[in-house]
Amino acid sequence: MPLLGLLPRRAWAALLSQLLRPPCASCTGAVRCQSQVAEAVLTSQLKAHQEKPNFIIKIPKGTRDLSPQHMVVREKILDLVISCFKRHGAKGMDTPAFELKETLTEKYGEDSGLMYDLKDQGGELLSLRYDLTVPFARYLAMSKVKKMKRYHVGKVWRRESPSIVQGRYREFCQCDFDIAGQFDPMIPDAECLKIMCEILSGLQLGDFLIKVNDRRIVDGMFAACGVPESKFRAICSSIDKLDKMAWKDVRHEMVAKKGLAPEVADRIGDYVQCHGGVSLVEQMFQDPRLSQNKQALEGLEDLKLLFEYLNLFGIAEKISFDLSLARGLDYYTGVIYEAVLLQTPTQAGEEPLNVGSVAAGGRYDGLVGMFDPKGHKVPCVGLSIGVERIFYIVEQRMKTKGEKVRTTETQVFVATPQKNFLQERLKLITELWDAGIKAEMLYKNNPKLLTQLHYCESTGIPLVVIIGEQELKEGIIKIRSVASREEVAIKRENLVAEIQKRLSES
Amino acid sequence: MPLLGLLPRRAWAALLSQLLRPPCASCTGAVRCQSQVAEAVLTSQLKAHQEKPNFIIKIPKGTRDLSPQHMVVREKILDLVISCFKRHGAKGMDTPAFELKETLTEKYGEDSGLMYDLKDQGGELLSLRYDLTVPFARYLAMSKVKKMKRYHVGKVWRRESPSIVQGRYREFCQCDFDIAGQFDPMIPDAECLKIMCEILSGLQLGDFLIKVNDRRIVDGMFAACGVPESKFRAICSSIDKLDKMAWKDVRHEMVAKKGLAPEVADRIGDYVQCHGGVSLVEQMFQDPRLSQNKQALEGLEDLKLLFEYLNLFGIAEKISFDLSLARGLDYYTGVIYEAVLLQTPTQAGEEPLNVGSVAAGGRYDGLVGMFDPKGHKVPCVGLSIGVERIFYIVEQRMKTKGEKVRTTETQVFVATPQKNFLQERLKLITELWDAGIKAEMLYKNNPKLLTQLHYCESTGIPLVVIIGEQELKEGIIKIRSVASREEVAIKRENLVAEIQKRLSES
Repeated sequence: MPLLGLLPRRAWAALLSQLLRPPCASCTGAVRCQSQVAEAVLTSQLKAHQEKPNFIIKIPKGTRDLSPQHMVVREKILDLVISCFKRHGAKGMDTPAFELKETLTEKYGEDSGLMYDLKDQGGELLSLRYDLTVPFARYLAMSKVKKMKRYHVGKVWRRESPSIVQGRYREFCQCDFDIAGQFDPMIPDAECLKIMCEILSGLQLGDFLIKVNDRRIVDGMFAACGVPESKFRAICSSIDKLDKMAWKDVRHEMVAKKGLAPEVADRIGDYVQCHGGVSLVEQMFQDPRLSQNKQALEGLEDLKLLFEYLNLFGIAEKISFDLSLARGLDYYTGVIYEAVLLQTPTQAGEEPLNVGSVAAGGRYDGLVGMFDPKGHKVPCVGLSIGVERIFYIVEQRMKTKGEKVRTTETQVFVATPQKNFLQERLKLITELWDAGIKAEMLYKNNPKLLTQLHYCESTGIPLVVIIGEQELKEGIIKIRSVASREEVAIKRENLVAEIQKRLSES
Repeated sequence: MPLLGLLPRRAWAALLSQLLRPPCASCTGAVRCQSQVAEAVLTSQLKAHQEKPNFIIKIPKGTRDLSPQHMVVREKILDLVISCFKRHGAKGMDTPAFELKETLTEKYGEDSGLMYDLKDQGGELLSLRYDLTVPFARYLAMSKVKKMKRYHVGKVWRRESPSIVQGRYREFCQCDFDIAGQFDPMIPDAECLKIMCEILSGLQLGDFLIKVNDRRIVDGMFAACGVPESKFRAICSSIDKLDKMAWKDVRHEMVAKKGLAPEVADRIGDYVQCHGGVSLVEQMFQDPRLSQNKQALEGLEDLKLLFEYLNLFGIAEKISFDLSLARGLDYYTGVIYEAVLLQTPTQAGEEPLNVGSVAAGGRYDGLVGMFDPKGHKVPCVGLSIGVERIFYIVEQRMKTKGEKVRTTETQVFVATPQKNFLQERLKLITELWDAGIKAEMLYKNNPKLLTQLHYCESTGIPLVVIIGEQELKEGIIKIRSVASREEVAIKRENLVAEIQKRLSES
């Protein structure tokens, strides 16, 4: 009676009342008749369902299951991203899905209300991780590691109102690459931009642009425009919305909600329209207000050096110095960047995509020190690939093109035209598996040949090996190509070698 | 002043009071002197730390970070496991880390108190997933999929008291393979056992044994011994502890804690000593008490058929019919199995390992129906590889043998013996990266050659390409083998081809 433990409490009562009936004629007496028990379980289950007329299975709000189709696209994209990280010498690592709540608080600025907290079940107060950067900084401080180039692919969780249509979920995957350590200026920073270019080119998402700025230039610009220092991060957070909101609305937020003087907002408005190449960096050195700000000057010096390295990497033309780039997170201290797709991949019949940035990052030299008891700093710079948006773009494209993906990798199907050939099929498939060949068969004693061949066609299996009475008698096996429907007979003992040959050719 | 947003609230007050000092002599007036601000930030940060004398960075209880060393071992093992799942035609899928709490309740029997709940932040009541099986069943019911062979690798969370020394954590990885659908009896079940054998053999963990039983035989045995049906699952849960506890203690739990009559416990005691091959199955058909139980007979019939298929798969000698195997989880309805390592891999100097089972699973035909509004059933059978225990064993072994693993895959290091060669190094490494070669260099303007070569030796990079004034003038590059210290000069334009040749040879 294996289902008993699975029944809801009310169903139990119904079940017990049934079991109190006298035993049926076929009962042994010692043990209650099993069929009677089974019937009672069924009845009580049905009753349980009748008692819950609104029985609905659901998945948590803002989350989704990833089907095999999703997984195939993901695997391909993640493979490309990870192999780029490895090409640049990064090590893998992982941290727990949750951290002590205090580890995560006061790190994210305005967004910290979006954290998932765990219930206090006696013990520590925990929250699900919100990104991979803060756990990395905590790891560096805890392990006293002073230098590390690592990548991290993992899920993070944010309680945002999900706008699922744009591929935004409350649970999503991040792919981060970071370089921690004290090095000569801008060399690791430039490599981060190189990596972003390699990945975005490799994924063939169409033309893209990476906006670059520096937190010191942002803050210097704020100071130069007359923003009170106490409002720096709040105004920064407003500016960060410029990719989703019009300037007019951002200005309104800064003035009406955050109490900025209108003329200060307008001064900012002049700056945030500026974007260009290294020549804009030169131009800003001449800006009468900005050039008087020590921080801004440091930022401009670094950007100048950065562009020199970007030239050597051959990617300078992909990079735009953009004064409207601010980045929302609090922890950035130097160069910041964000990659956007230029040409929305809208083709005939495709919905227009509004995917925002597909990769972003920057320098955060203060974060590790916040976790160190003595405040020892470890300078860091890194990037995060917005893989969820990339998955979404690629899936949309495949949908438009009507492309189908195979969700299995099966190479060979073991079939028979005869009845009572299960034993032979099992022996045959064992040989294939043991030789490392990906093989399937139907879990039926006597499947029809047509059903078997149809299965191969619908799942994209390229080869069928067929065994029947004739073949068994003659010591041969037929190999059939699903695409061409050609069949050849080969000696049974050559089966594995022949299949490996065909697979290596295709 | 990029750190401002990062300061704790009290530090803010300290900072503000500093900022209220009159501007220093070098200040422009319009903007507050940056060095003064920087000083204020520093002071207030120190103050913040002085205010938290017990400042300790911690990671949640029962969890750990996975270092690059851990990750390398994991990647290898997971690759082997996943490629076996794919060899058997499985598709990948994923579900969210958390489910509605009600999805998970009343599925796990005595263990359900160990679930991590999320805090009620307004909205649904959620819990972290406890295994991958219940989410799979929920997925099947929700998507109305009636047939599916899938694998799932993901983290699960259980609030157990962690005994970290044995490699048990509150967050751990599971690797599941399941076959859902109505098929002819025992064919998918036998394949699950085949897969367990392939994986355990492939991992070379030493000799192993897979214990097999059937929930219907367990329940039939309970009925035959006189266990009241209401105690079936509770007694099953006690029997499940036989691999960790002595019979005497399990008997005590059943009698003293679960109110079983002592003579009933002793009758169970006789059965649970029995284990053997297919001959034991035959023997149990003759058992006077068991053979009168319809359920037990069904279970025995199925085991007989199972052994027939296991023979054809060539793995029957690895399988032991074991009446002490019960499995703790409530949802099993048919065949159950658990793999144990026979020869603890204790070698000279190695700690004895108590790793328990390394893979387990069984048939659960009722679980999907519990999620279906109309109770439609989808029969399922599957297995879970205890990868955490396997990681632990492999790591222990490597430690004993003093084996080191490379944590990066870098193939080529770009070095220079000269000062002011950063530009040339950057150009060179770009060429390598763009050709798909894994390459690193030091992030220094003027690193010493010895430092560069030492880096290669300590991180296991096999090749160095060296560029200096001489090489630049002659249009050549030196390639150095780190192991042999041999150097050869090649034409600059042949660099990529030459390196690819060398890498393909090694």
